[in-house]
Amino acid sequence: MRRAVELAARGRGTTSPNPVVGCVVLDASGRIAGEGFHAYAGGPHAEVAALREAGERARGGTAYVTLEPCDHTGRTGPCSAALLRAGIARVVVAVRDPNPAAAGGADRLRAEGVAVETGVLAEEAERGNAEWLTSVRLGRPHVTWKYAATLDGRSAAADGTSQWITSPEARADVHRLRAEADAIIAGVGTVLADDPRLTARPPGGPGGPGPGPGGAGPGTARGPLRVVVDSDARTPPSARVLDGRAPTLVAVAPDADAAELEKRAEVVRLPRRPYGLDLRDLLAELHRRQIVGVLLEGGPVLAGSFLREGLIDRVVGYLAPALLGEGAAALGPAGVATIAGTRRLEFEDITPVGPDLRLTARPVPVKEQ
Amino acid sequence: MRRAVELAARGRGTTSPNPVVGCVVLDASGRIAGEGFHAYAGGPHAEVAALREAGERARGGTAYVTLEPCDHTGRTGPCSAALLRAGIARVVVAVRDPNPAAAGGADRLRAEGVAVETGVLAEEAERGNAEWLTSVRLGRPHVTWKYAATLDGRSAAADGTSQWITSPEARADVHRLRAEADAIIAGVGTVLADDPRLTARPPGGPGGPGPGPGGAGPGTARGPLRVVVDSDARTPPSARVLDGRAPTLVAVAPDADAAELEKRAEVVRLPRRPYGLDLRDLLAELHRRQIVGVLLEGGPVLAGSFLREGLIDRVVGYLAPALLGEGAAALGPAGVATIAGTRRLEFEDITPVGPDLRLTARPVPVKEQ
Repeated sequence: MRRAVELAARGRGTTSPNPVVGCVVLDASGRIAGEGFHAYAGGPHAEVAALREAGERARGGTAYVTLEPCDHTGRTGPCSAALLRAGIARVVVAVRDPNPAAAGGADRLRAEGVAVETGVLAEEAERGNAEWLTSVRLGRPHVTWKYAATLDGRSAAADGTSQWITSPEARADVHRLRAEADAIIAGVGTVLADDPRLTARPPGGPGGPGPGPGGAGPGTARGPLRVVVDSDARTPPSARVLDGRAPTLVAVAPDADAAELEKRAEVVRLPRRPYGLDLRDLLAELHRRQIVGVLLEGGPVLAGSFLREGLIDRVVGYLAPALLGEGAAALGPAGVATIAGTRRLEFEDITPVGPDLRLTARPVPVKEQ
Repeated sequence: MRRAVELAARGRGTTSPNPVVGCVVLDASGRIAGEGFHAYAGGPHAEVAALREAGERARGGTAYVTLEPCDHTGRTGPCSAALLRAGIARVVVAVRDPNPAAAGGADRLRAEGVAVETGVLAEEAERGNAEWLTSVRLGRPHVTWKYAATLDGRSAAADGTSQWITSPEARADVHRLRAEADAIIAGVGTVLADDPRLTARPPGGPGGPGPGPGGAGPGTARGPLRVVVDSDARTPPSARVLDGRAPTLVAVAPDADAAELEKRAEVVRLPRRPYGLDLRDLLAELHRRQIVGVLLEGGPVLAGSFLREGLIDRVVGYLAPALLGEGAAALGPAGVATIAGTRRLEFEDITPVGPDLRLTARPVPVKEQ
């Protein structure tokens, strides 16, 4: 199953709005007969790819699959039927499919006499599919908040300069994160301060050979959707985020004058809330567009609002071994006034990236939710 | 030599104002014949301990020692002479002794026909002796700034509460840091806000069995000196830091009314500077008292002043996987206005401590210094 989880990860960044799935087929004597993963939406499912490789050796064998095999006919036929046709005797599943339209594969297989086990290495498999599972379970995209800061938590110096706090290696890693996302969100404050392009540059750089292994796949040929949260339509027409290199959506308030913006980007109007535009509505809008994984790039005010609303699913922080002592904090007010209200997370991964450190953490599940 | 560095580390916290030193003696055929480390000031030097264990097997052998053997007679005889008497043929040294009163051991040994090599594993050995080497080279104590913060760099919530941001495991680790220090410095702001005791509780807790392996040694039976930086003598007589459990020094301005304080603690008067009391004078005062390693526990304003003056040699940050969004930053103004002025460091160690992360970093040496 660990191998199947590894295989699944190869699809990261190119399967959306589908999940990543990996499958390993063993023959009746327990030897690996076939391997497969879901590579892009519309392409063969992991089970089908693995069964194809295994051929006749699949008969009487075992299939390890990271997600419950589907039981519906989408762009491809149901995997449950493919496993039955191949004569698989036993199916081991990591995570049950929470999608009501596709679920039922395990039951179907059991009804046909196949031994089915579920929950094997479920935690690892869940982690690899966090975006898609959040999308299906909560009906909104999975939100990763990315920040870069000094050891004292600052993302800019007192004079507003912020380029660069982290190393080239860390910035290259951010481009990998962007390439895996379906949409990148920034607040207008960040657009006005840093004029970011919010594109995912392929590993070879802007003039490079195009999407590499970690780059955008068939489903996102033009790169992730760029989203600017801009209540009063202050994004200047010359902003790089409006340069046409990737689609851009600007969220404004119902009363904003967005005539200029509408010439250069798609504009969506969202109700105002005390903290800014309604972020649940924003995510609902993105969900309708089959956006599964979102990368929130700040700034601090917007990140604080997402946190306040409980809409951050993962935090990726790039920590530079540096100290500023003054300047904007990475995170703005999130409605936490006292230490007891601190938003608690758990570290999931700690990795050095060049001279910096990448910290990945997820909120500790709250029982009230 | 790696073994010698390990042995040296056993003396941490108990040898001050002496360095930590480890020594491994091999016999003429290269087998380990004796091991030793310097355990406490006034006790036998590492070489003497290792030679004692080796006995006659030292003749014609090699001594690996983390610091150049001393050539002077302090409370113990010169180690150079002891090595000669034992008939050691070769001495391998990690770090040369920068102390003019004790140096010269390598030259003496060479003059007597012993082969001497220096600089072997020097970086590791330097690190283990950072406090003592700083003290001898710069004529001031080595300063470790310790902070605890959330991922967004905050050490307190908006209402000032800060207990507890980090886990019990992280707090226990801080007590180990305290036990290794000769003095613990805090600003009066921290005393007024948190009323800390600034003592190093032994591993067993306040009612425990006394100093354990990591606890205070013979030289510091009453624990590290507590130092409060308090320009206007605002420390209240009831403050825990004045409880008499360990010696306390309060630094005040020349014009401060410290009559009450003087009944409960030693008071030293230091000139005022634009940023507060003169911190170089404070460290000079501590150096006169044979304080070698200092733990600076904040708060943010005092830490910022130390950083501004270039007086921080090591940073130990305890990072909780938590977010606040508001509240005091771990570090206050340090005279850095723009990103180009950022104080750069290098990570030296990253270690999980319970659910938290301990980051150790040292300033990147600046050429102008």
